[in-house]
Amino acid sequence: MSGWVIVAGLGPGSESLVTPEVTEALAQATDVVGYIPYVARVAPRPGLTLHPSDNRVEMDRAQHALRMAAEGKRVVVVSSGDPGVFAMASAIFEALEAAPQFLDLDIRILPGITAMLAAAARAGAPLGHDFCAINLSDNLKPFATVEKRVALAAQGDFAMAFYNPRSASRPHQFTRVLEVLRAHCDPGRLITFARAVSTADEAIRTVTLAEATPDMADMRTVVIVGNSQTRRIGPHVYTPRSAL
Amino acid sequence: MSGWVIVAGLGPGSESLVTPEVTEALAQATDVVGYIPYVARVAPRPGLTLHPSDNRVEMDRAQHALRMAAEGKRVVVVSSGDPGVFAMASAIFEALEAAPQFLDLDIRILPGITAMLAAAARAGAPLGHDFCAINLSDNLKPFATVEKRVALAAQGDFAMAFYNPRSASRPHQFTRVLEVLRAHCDPGRLITFARAVSTADEAIRTVTLAEATPDMADMRTVVIVGNSQTRRIGPHVYTPRSAL
Repeated sequence: MSGWVIVAGLGPGSESLVTPEVTEALAQATDVVGYIPYVARVAPRPGLTLHPSDNRVEMDRAQHALRMAAEGKRVVVVSSGDPGVFAMASAIFEALEAAPQFLDLDIRILPGITAMLAAAARAGAPLGHDFCAINLSDNLKPFATVEKRVALAAQGDFAMAFYNPRSASRPHQFTRVLEVLRAHCDPGRLITFARAVSTADEAIRTVTLAEATPDMADMRTVVIVGNSQTRRIGPHVYTPRSAL
Repeated sequence: MSGWVIVAGLGPGSESLVTPEVTEALAQATDVVGYIPYVARVAPRPGLTLHPSDNRVEMDRAQHALRMAAEGKRVVVVSSGDPGVFAMASAIFEALEAAPQFLDLDIRILPGITAMLAAAARAGAPLGHDFCAINLSDNLKPFATVEKRVALAAQGDFAMAFYNPRSASRPHQFTRVLEVLRAHCDPGRLITFARAVSTADEAIRTVTLAEATPDMADMRTVVIVGNSQTRRIGPHVYTPRSAL
């Protein structure tokens, strides 16, 4: 078998945030697999087959990638951001665990700029000290686990980044997360809502916990909660390197 | 003033992980400031002045960058990895807070591939579910805060990434962190020691918590601790997307 699977992070949206390593992998690929809007970011060319698929079919997509690589194809599975952060890398390994005939395949993960770090950079440096990354979706875990982790992160005075903060089908859950934060943090705690970072739709807004409302987030938003020392300086939001 | 300060992440070491955005900023710069080994990664050219400085002089370096920008220079402050993760972005804003005469300066942060995400990609996907990033150095916080955060992260069943796990002057502290982990996690918990990722010196090793010893980490190592579900599949280490 000379095929391979590369799971590549395209970054949050701008081409200027795609690493040369990922660009090179795409140039070598025979097939590109991924969620429709991410595959749409790959330029068509002769010899390259694009396989866009819908959201929430991660396991089908992963199995498809493994099968094609076993047939000798050079397959790039594209994720936005970093593929190892709430994205396709874990799905590929789940599929591999369920299909051990593919264990000898050449599988590599190429990192990308994940949304929380692109968002933090635009805001200033709100993740400049210890922080947690939490996926607020309860598609794959009980919502009680989300609440527990947010509470523990607040108790530890971690800064936090929330992925998938709000879905149309479960709008009340982000409301509940704000309640958990209010139980543990001062009303002046700074929260940055960063939508569609590095794209034409980018919108960044920082408010206090007292001002935050659930409608400030949607599924294209990453939410960054500062720690107790996070502050504004001019237009910037940053967390000092030191802690109490 | 037409000068500016850009704080740019060079990624963990390989040129193939430097974003085009950062490459472009370096091409526009008149001055580059940073820790000696990071400035050494920038190619000299006519019109560019390199200002390498020693470790632990972050505030001097930040003030120097602000002063030069105020004089009209185009200054890039280089960090390894991502500048917003335990690096120079927060130091620049600390310097700005102490020198408000520079508040109107054009200051931007450009994200980079941070060490934990490069290391996770090499290992597989050990950060594929909720995780914390913790700086184990007590240069800027009490070590009791480190111990508390590691314990809370373990209680929440977060995966964890440790930066600056071990220094020559405080070798016993990583020993203590392993003790905290052993108090909360099963002996089979997987730990990846990733040294100098993406450089010629790269070395990646995954062991169980029972097998882990303090000498497996040094200051060029990022340590990734899986959560309770993290497992091996073939040569890969990954954390499933679902949680209990």
